[in-house]
Amino acid sequence: MERHRNMTMLCDFYELTMANGYFLSGKKDTISYFDVFFRNIPDHGGFAIAAGLEEVVEYLRDLRFTEEDIEYLRSKKLFDEGFLDYLRNFRFTGDVWAIPEGTPIFPGEPILTVRAPSIEAQFIETYILLSLNHQSLIATKANRIVRSAEGRVVLEFGSRRAQGASAAINGARACYIGGVNGTACTISDELYGVPAGGTMAHSWVQMFDSQYEAFKRYCEIYPNNATLLVDTYNTLKSGIPDAIRAFNEVLRPLGITNCGIRIDSGDMAYLTRKAREMLDEAGWPGCKISVSNSMDEYIIKDILSQGAQIDLFGVGERMITAKSDPVFGGVYKVCAVEDEQGNIIPKIKVSENVGKITNPHYKKLWRFFGRDTGKAIADYISLHDETVDDSGEFEIFDPEATWKRKEVYNFEAKELQVPIFRNGELIYDLPDLKTIRAYCAQQVDTLWDEVKRFDNPHTYYVDLSQKLWDIKQEMLREAGKQL
Amino acid sequence: MERHRNMTMLCDFYELTMANGYFLSGKKDTISYFDVFFRNIPDHGGFAIAAGLEEVVEYLRDLRFTEEDIEYLRSKKLFDEGFLDYLRNFRFTGDVWAIPEGTPIFPGEPILTVRAPSIEAQFIETYILLSLNHQSLIATKANRIVRSAEGRVVLEFGSRRAQGASAAINGARACYIGGVNGTACTISDELYGVPAGGTMAHSWVQMFDSQYEAFKRYCEIYPNNATLLVDTYNTLKSGIPDAIRAFNEVLRPLGITNCGIRIDSGDMAYLTRKAREMLDEAGWPGCKISVSNSMDEYIIKDILSQGAQIDLFGVGERMITAKSDPVFGGVYKVCAVEDEQGNIIPKIKVSENVGKITNPHYKKLWRFFGRDTGKAIADYISLHDETVDDSGEFEIFDPEATWKRKEVYNFEAKELQVPIFRNGELIYDLPDLKTIRAYCAQQVDTLWDEVKRFDNPHTYYVDLSQKLWDIKQEMLREAGKQL
Repeated sequence: MERHRNMTMLCDFYELTMANGYFLSGKKDTISYFDVFFRNIPDHGGFAIAAGLEEVVEYLRDLRFTEEDIEYLRSKKLFDEGFLDYLRNFRFTGDVWAIPEGTPIFPGEPILTVRAPSIEAQFIETYILLSLNHQSLIATKANRIVRSAEGRVVLEFGSRRAQGASAAINGARACYIGGVNGTACTISDELYGVPAGGTMAHSWVQMFDSQYEAFKRYCEIYPNNATLLVDTYNTLKSGIPDAIRAFNEVLRPLGITNCGIRIDSGDMAYLTRKAREMLDEAGWPGCKISVSNSMDEYIIKDILSQGAQIDLFGVGERMITAKSDPVFGGVYKVCAVEDEQGNIIPKIKVSENVGKITNPHYKKLWRFFGRDTGKAIADYISLHDETVDDSGEFEIFDPEATWKRKEVYNFEAKELQVPIFRNGELIYDLPDLKTIRAYCAQQVDTLWDEVKRFDNPHTYYVDLSQKLWDIKQEMLREAGKQL
Repeated sequence: MERHRNMTMLCDFYELTMANGYFLSGKKDTISYFDVFFRNIPDHGGFAIAAGLEEVVEYLRDLRFTEEDIEYLRSKKLFDEGFLDYLRNFRFTGDVWAIPEGTPIFPGEPILTVRAPSIEAQFIETYILLSLNHQSLIATKANRIVRSAEGRVVLEFGSRRAQGASAAINGARACYIGGVNGTACTISDELYGVPAGGTMAHSWVQMFDSQYEAFKRYCEIYPNNATLLVDTYNTLKSGIPDAIRAFNEVLRPLGITNCGIRIDSGDMAYLTRKAREMLDEAGWPGCKISVSNSMDEYIIKDILSQGAQIDLFGVGERMITAKSDPVFGGVYKVCAVEDEQGNIIPKIKVSENVGKITNPHYKKLWRFFGRDTGKAIADYISLHDETVDDSGEFEIFDPEATWKRKEVYNFEAKELQVPIFRNGELIYDLPDLKTIRAYCAQQVDTLWDEVKRFDNPHTYYVDLSQKLWDIKQEMLREAGKQL
């Protein structure tokens, strides 16, 4: 099954009016640089998780207009015929660098950078943002939920409440990157290898003459995979007793001790404690207890602290929509252009809102890891042609409170962005999903606990090099004078 | 361009394990009835807007497993070979009734009803819910935002923050049903005819040597469509003055008086009042003012009450994700099965949570309209074989507070569900999108203002027929006895 259909026309219309404008203004071949970055971490967390790069890669690789698309554009009576003709052979010919999927990311740093002729660089804005914003949002949320479950299994159950088909499919993929163990979404398994599983709905129970018969039949068909939904009528009075009876009847003679029950309503702290008692007393200590009603990191922490006996969380709408904070605000901003001689001219967007001022220029992003601890100390943004000497001491400073300076030492500086496209050619070997998931878990482990706190986490350092900071200040002064 | 790819495998895995189970238990041909309904209106509103039916129709029409899908399922080592073989020719052969897109809908009523062999009816759960939940959510949110704008133009600008590609594409469609005037999402225009438009980003302004040059060039290329983004450097000090200069220079000689500015940051109440003054003084009273920064119904009402001078709202992330309440909780529940003689046996799901108890049986849904006012009085759910005599007085009662009884008279009873599929054949003529949008506006007009209030609206009546109420009570008593 193809993962991805051609999404060239999923663009904001202004990208086309601007493209036509660049074409007519002799600017189409001007090389420009754009950065993707975000300003706020969802749920006031301490970090986000990068995801969506694979979708960006497939989009850029497939970028082309069909005759039908061009006919549609002609019908708008806005575009130059020369421009429409140019679109016939439109391909992405630029360079892309990006932070690999699964990496913890922080506000203000370039997650992805494009260098391309201006029409191309401008045109791809919407789809790049959509992919990175969506999947980073969900991977970040999933990682929070997985961490709240403290090692218990977390499954993604949210397709029916997802905001459309891609939200279900790529959302399950992003949840897996963030650390969930599997999904109910079958197509995400077929397309991406997110392990899919599932057992029964209430309707299975209702379709039989009795709950016991429904449970017994299920155990007969799936003796090695029998998780019974016990809350259709009454969890404690009939659901669990009928489940135990079915386990005794069908599984016990087969020597099977692994099975499960799922509770989908009611007070989970109380019901799961009672369920655990009943199952243990009946000789089913290997029976796992799953719950699946409006779970998120807040509720999970709460009921676990109340002694809930839960082995597995099925998490639906609150993860697949990132319900408590459902927008990841990545933006795509020009940071430089090249003149005809190939000189890089930095660009800045000034704003009355200090947080909306951009970091100008073609840049490089570094993460400093302690050589003794393996922990991430700070991120550091330099000009593209700077290097970091990590053999000795190195001074970094807070770009807003510049008197806050710090010497770092015994550290290793790693570049975070890797080359993805060069001259339109894909030069990045996309990792498989299990590799991305393992990498994510390992990278989250490099963060100090203070950064991983759910409430009021420590703000991780994202600093600028002195040279970059000086250029930015100079540009702000110049912009101020011009007003 | 094809609107829709085959989404057969976008199902919850339990639909497959249950299907295999029905197949092996001789239940695959048992006719069952499922209802889609929802329990809570997003944002505590007074009504929701039905949307997503067209996506459901395309899904059901295209439903089929490929050999690749079957091979994938075989690899799970859970499914019977007879079942996998059966999937080769799996098609939807049942009946579907649904409320047309654009209709106001209320909690507890059947939005869509399926009658089909149990495997089929069960299998289609996830995609039906996903489509209706997503598009109804967004249409409902868009309708709130459009109503808050009190007749001003509202455009959908949210693709980059949408939760994936379908959220952008179908979200723009749903927004249009809810009443927005157009979208920035080009592909939604090409596929569905949602009018797409757009002018420039900050990068256009930055790509030229000066803001004035960028504005002038844009006016030259698009003299009839010149909306200039004025907040790249400073809205009042340079943005609007440069825009006026470009209008004077390029548009005035052409006799063009329609143009626009867009403000994307800052205090909209203050900036738009100042902008209006500056434009009027400069002789540009026909220049429209657009704003586009984190708008939703709450902010729009607020800034309009402060005298903001706005002609057009560009609404992004808060509409395309329904940010303030991003989940529409539609569920899909079995309500009846047929025995071998074709007798309809009602089914109910009992719950300790009263709100989660379902309405059993194969039903019919009516809306009563006052013959004098044209306004909607109440909705009424009856058994499938009941009729409503609307020639005289008719008693309805609150299904929870049954002593609250009311005589309605001088009314017309209209059935809300229409037939969509019969024996797997599509018998519904899908309306075009403009027709759906006009129908939605007209149907929202049939609601009293009390129901349309944003805060604490009147709860619209959704009543049960006496016969249906009696059956439900009897079933609850029976279920209670069995515990």
